[in-house]
Amino acid sequence: MYGAPCVEKLSAEQKERVEALRARGRGVCLAVVRVGDDPASEVYVRNKKNACQRLGIESREIHLPGSVSQAEVEECLDKLGADPDVDGILLQLPLPRGLDDKAALTHIPAAKDADGFRSENCGTLICGGEGTLPCTPRGILYMLKHYGVALEGKHAVVIGRSAIVGKPAALMLLGENCTVTVCHSKTADLKEHTRRADILVAAVGKAGFVTGDMVKDGCVIVDVGINRTPEGLRGDVDAVSVGDKAAFITPVPGGVGKLTVAMLMENVIELAERRTGLTEA
Amino acid sequence: MYGAPCVEKLSAEQKERVEALRARGRGVCLAVVRVGDDPASEVYVRNKKNACQRLGIESREIHLPGSVSQAEVEECLDKLGADPDVDGILLQLPLPRGLDDKAALTHIPAAKDADGFRSENCGTLICGGEGTLPCTPRGILYMLKHYGVALEGKHAVVIGRSAIVGKPAALMLLGENCTVTVCHSKTADLKEHTRRADILVAAVGKAGFVTGDMVKDGCVIVDVGINRTPEGLRGDVDAVSVGDKAAFITPVPGGVGKLTVAMLMENVIELAERRTGLTEA
Repeated sequence: MYGAPCVEKLSAEQKERVEALRARGRGVCLAVVRVGDDPASEVYVRNKKNACQRLGIESREIHLPGSVSQAEVEECLDKLGADPDVDGILLQLPLPRGLDDKAALTHIPAAKDADGFRSENCGTLICGGEGTLPCTPRGILYMLKHYGVALEGKHAVVIGRSAIVGKPAALMLLGENCTVTVCHSKTADLKEHTRRADILVAAVGKAGFVTGDMVKDGCVIVDVGINRTPEGLRGDVDAVSVGDKAAFITPVPGGVGKLTVAMLMENVIELAERRTGLTEA
Repeated sequence: MYGAPCVEKLSAEQKERVEALRARGRGVCLAVVRVGDDPASEVYVRNKKNACQRLGIESREIHLPGSVSQAEVEECLDKLGADPDVDGILLQLPLPRGLDDKAALTHIPAAKDADGFRSENCGTLICGGEGTLPCTPRGILYMLKHYGVALEGKHAVVIGRSAIVGKPAALMLLGENCTVTVCHSKTADLKEHTRRADILVAAVGKAGFVTGDMVKDGCVIVDVGINRTPEGLRGDVDAVSVGDKAAFITPVPGGVGKLTVAMLMENVIELAERRTGLTEA
């Protein structure tokens, strides 16, 4: 399951929605705040800006020096929160050592939280209602549906329980009527669980962690890992040993990673549509 | 595993905390809004008022007639939200037909949400931070810990995925390092899952739903069901057939249900402590 066809399809729809907003006299604007000079963050931010550009979304990059204080980061976010021209705000994480990611995020108003990291937003996965959802798990669900993977009644096993991937992915799969198991570093006998999965989502952060002996024949594997190794980018799944057993697998690179930025664009457009009083598609 | 010893222990601690607040010149106050004349709601509200009274918490009952409009319910909640003497607000659900539970709940400020039903609060189960959590799953966790049930690395299976029990219970068990599976009405081959559970939480709402053939020897069973039957209150678990196999089981009545009101008291006291700037124990 490749990411590119999904992104292509999404982009076409997204362009139209951005144009529809512009026809109402309204641009869409994402503000990205980057602090310090982490090279990976720089690449991520560039990718996001490029995606905005392709869709006709205005992107504002605010680059603060690594020496900035917590108060200055928060003041910057407060200003963007108050700026009526800004639809979505993204704080590129992690912040440099000494700054508090979580405290800073509370300075992004929930209605402009492009990443869906605030509890008001991701909390809707528990109690319902309208909220912006984290991009990577949204991308996972989009891909599974795009490739026609049946979800209802299937057993989905998620390895990893982070706030931005594992937990929201599990809740979204639950929302699609999967039976869902969440495994993690403290799971006893991981194989026992992963071998039962119809759908396996690996969000571990360890290259080649999931091997062929851990999966059953015919399973669908979503590899969320993006691990830098001497041999280049590798996923959490050992594609070689798993290859013959899986019915579908998302490659790394070129899989679900591609969807994350596309889903960020989706979030920003939805935020703009909500602010404009347009209901989302 | 009986609920009463837990409630007794909690009550003693809670009384002290209420007194500590009073020593600072500050009462604790829970406002309960009941709409219409549902007899079950009346019983629940009475239980909550009695619990308040035992702890020295002021309880204000606002009883609105069933003929009230949505706007009137919301106005009532707005007023309580603005009242500096009120620490916690609870809207007894379900509202009479024609009124919108969810829309009404948004009129309870997150900082006074005694039930932990708002996404800002239960969302902290996904993304961390400080928030009021739903009472029944808090009670489940309290009981398991009180009775010394080991959680780390154990496989917990939750049957049911409601916003107020199943989903938050699953996330709390995950937070205790359980491997967690959530099953529901769309789960294929439920038995396959429940038979693997070290800890089984039944929140289905069907009397006697979980039978002996569905559980493994030595499992710990938490029965969250409170079902009215011609034979009286019954849980979701068929205690007779399960009895010999379970290492521990919570009875109905007298089990986890008892904890729900005690955890509501815990929530209200925490809300008052936060508003007073006292950190919670």
